[in-house]
Amino acid sequence: MSEPTRILLEEHEIPTHWYNIAADLSTPPAPPLGPDGKPIDPSAMAAIFPEPILEQEMSRERWIAIPEAVRETYAIWRPSPLMRAVRLERRLGTPAKIFFKYEGVSPAGSHKPNSAVPQAYYNRQVGIKRLTTETGAGQWGSSIAFAGQMLGLEVRVYMVRVSYQQKPQRRVLMETWGAEVHASPSPLTETGRRILATEPDHPGSLGIAISEAVEEAASRPDTNYTLGSVLNHVLLHQSLIGLEAKKQFEKIGLYPDVIFGPCGGGSSFGGIAFPFLADKFAGERRAAGLRCVAVEPESCPSLTKGTYAYDYGDASGFTPLMRMYTLGHDFVPPGIHAGGLRYHGASPLVSQLVHEGQVEALAVPQRATFEAGIQFARAEGIIPAPESCHAIRAVIDEALRCKETGEPKVLLFNLTGHGHFDMSAYERYLRGELEDYTLPDELLAEALRTLPSVG
Amino acid sequence: MSEPTRILLEEHEIPTHWYNIAADLSTPPAPPLGPDGKPIDPSAMAAIFPEPILEQEMSRERWIAIPEAVRETYAIWRPSPLMRAVRLERRLGTPAKIFFKYEGVSPAGSHKPNSAVPQAYYNRQVGIKRLTTETGAGQWGSSIAFAGQMLGLEVRVYMVRVSYQQKPQRRVLMETWGAEVHASPSPLTETGRRILATEPDHPGSLGIAISEAVEEAASRPDTNYTLGSVLNHVLLHQSLIGLEAKKQFEKIGLYPDVIFGPCGGGSSFGGIAFPFLADKFAGERRAAGLRCVAVEPESCPSLTKGTYAYDYGDASGFTPLMRMYTLGHDFVPPGIHAGGLRYHGASPLVSQLVHEGQVEALAVPQRATFEAGIQFARAEGIIPAPESCHAIRAVIDEALRCKETGEPKVLLFNLTGHGHFDMSAYERYLRGELEDYTLPDELLAEALRTLPSVG
Repeated sequence: MSEPTRILLEEHEIPTHWYNIAADLSTPPAPPLGPDGKPIDPSAMAAIFPEPILEQEMSRERWIAIPEAVRETYAIWRPSPLMRAVRLERRLGTPAKIFFKYEGVSPAGSHKPNSAVPQAYYNRQVGIKRLTTETGAGQWGSSIAFAGQMLGLEVRVYMVRVSYQQKPQRRVLMETWGAEVHASPSPLTETGRRILATEPDHPGSLGIAISEAVEEAASRPDTNYTLGSVLNHVLLHQSLIGLEAKKQFEKIGLYPDVIFGPCGGGSSFGGIAFPFLADKFAGERRAAGLRCVAVEPESCPSLTKGTYAYDYGDASGFTPLMRMYTLGHDFVPPGIHAGGLRYHGASPLVSQLVHEGQVEALAVPQRATFEAGIQFARAEGIIPAPESCHAIRAVIDEALRCKETGEPKVLLFNLTGHGHFDMSAYERYLRGELEDYTLPDELLAEALRTLPSVG
Repeated sequence: MSEPTRILLEEHEIPTHWYNIAADLSTPPAPPLGPDGKPIDPSAMAAIFPEPILEQEMSRERWIAIPEAVRETYAIWRPSPLMRAVRLERRLGTPAKIFFKYEGVSPAGSHKPNSAVPQAYYNRQVGIKRLTTETGAGQWGSSIAFAGQMLGLEVRVYMVRVSYQQKPQRRVLMETWGAEVHASPSPLTETGRRILATEPDHPGSLGIAISEAVEEAASRPDTNYTLGSVLNHVLLHQSLIGLEAKKQFEKIGLYPDVIFGPCGGGSSFGGIAFPFLADKFAGERRAAGLRCVAVEPESCPSLTKGTYAYDYGDASGFTPLMRMYTLGHDFVPPGIHAGGLRYHGASPLVSQLVHEGQVEALAVPQRATFEAGIQFARAEGIIPAPESCHAIRAVIDEALRCKETGEPKVLLFNLTGHGHFDMSAYERYLRGELEDYTLPDELLAEALRTLPSVG
């Protein structure tokens, strides 16, 4: 056991500050716009977000202190291990060194609590008693249920009805942590009641669930809304992942050549990549050749086939307009199993970096991601979540290229969560029931036609 | 963050030797007997177990070296964290300090791989190519599927048909790791074919699945059988848990006053308690007042209501007779949700220690265990497996006693696994659908009448 499998940090090495990449961008981030096409005042969102979160959303400070109570809650599972996939390297016969940051060790089984905990903390700090959110497969919903319980806030989750019925496990997980979970559309909001009046069996959608959660938060002074990806403050919180990984690489005297993260809304990719990009922006020699690759599903290819433009963050047009890569807010991704990557747009920060050529984007087909996930599981033992399988597909392909060229590159990816809640997706893959889906050009053109004409 | 939440060890601190409590018993363990009532020769079991495992089963050496390849595989998730449940302490208002060893961090989500890995290793060492086993809820089956894949052996699992149909998640987990899983009774064995001939829809039982797995192993020279609890070598392997916990307590200068482990077959209780009992047997002052409590379900109370006698390890009478606390091998435990604790007997080593008054036994009702599990989950964030909830019930009750007496006791329990595969049990509890079941005296008397008249 000369080289360790897991590179661990002590609890006191949990970062004391989050890293804010907005401080290091060559051009300022494009501001969110209101429906009139003018930059919106942050106070316009004060009805649903607490002041400290709005400040973080707009901040261009490089380092933002992590409150001690947040660090104490992180300590339940953080620092997470950086692991070397030496068995996978051997099976691939690659000279590359493959590392992964394992975020599946959190109580919710994914990286999402990294942002859920501070969001709950700041809301409590300003006197908020209740949080609402929407959830599809339940990853964010369960993380905010966990965080709310840890920090003493009530949580109500609007869960897309079809998931509520077909995926009871994460719903029960949320209830075990004390959250109220409602099938959306629900009779609890105007939005829900209007839909149910004409279609009582409506299967729901993420867009409708967002509308319900926002409507409730906006109408109750004791209640705020939370979002698990896309926005700047979420990527700020997730920078923990990369900051810890940097310390862990320093312990073993290595530095990554290529970093891979799955990319839907962008929080897991930004979380692992941004702190390393900081070194590149600072002109550090070790980061001079660093490549960062955002890996998205071929069936929902916002970064690789979308347009860099202003669009709504949600399907219904309730949110401010954000400048990002988008497939059009009307785009409905097909039923792929990486629920966390089914998003029509992408984080404005990630989008800007892709647009400026600082970050590469890559789209991979669904079956190839499960093939990679199973190859990884059989080599390393850990069953990855379907989202993580996207990064694994890309890292295996890169390791195989290294085998051809003989380059001993250091590869790093974000293993964002375990797949213990996703066994039905693995079952469908193993039974040969999963399909690939490439977005037809006509459909793409049609979706993009819905882009608002502002910005 | 003055006191750490998680006490971690480095990879090189994974123990180099397992602890064998058989070396320290005041009277030698009672030998297993054949159907003729005479001690069986270990070679009688050589058709299904490899030599090194049989040696460990009979060994009275105190320390047995852990092969380096086994330690390297352990390093995927070990050393596991020792954690302080400080939030639970606060919510209970107890002066007690509550610690738990968290075994849910393994790829299979439980402590079972601690023994699956060395069992796979020793079988490969003697040239075995395939392993068989039985599984009910799937905890052991998935652990041996993981270990077989890690060490290069094929695995075939006979899964009780009713679980195969109703609990597909762990089945898919096994398949993801490359194991073949068959519903039992199956057409692959004599035993299975005989049953299916008269009852094609037979729901199966653990006893039948054991018979199928043993039959196949006995009839194929390249194939051996594996068992996940009860036997001495399994408890030997699980001693890792307590050995690591001792090192972790030394780091913080504390020592437990009371240790709690859930107890079905006995591997998780023995795993955490035996290395501390070693200190007591050695006359160490710090262990003079140590109490160890095995916590079992009230519905399957072998240690608290069973008889200390020779009985078969399986339902069908295929195995040697072992001296243990038993409810009679015909006893069919009711459908409680802690599948890992549904066993008519108990480890002979744990049984002997209970019989000699070195270990206490306690039975708890089902609903109270889920109540405790949810209380724990809401305080500490981690969702415990239903088996672990038994230990949590006992530790909360002890902490509340400490609140009355003002004693700042140090309590330790084994959190044997996460509950992410058990959300349906939590759901039934939350919906008020779970029932308690106390074994009626008549039924107990009837079951005990089936005890064989040997030994």
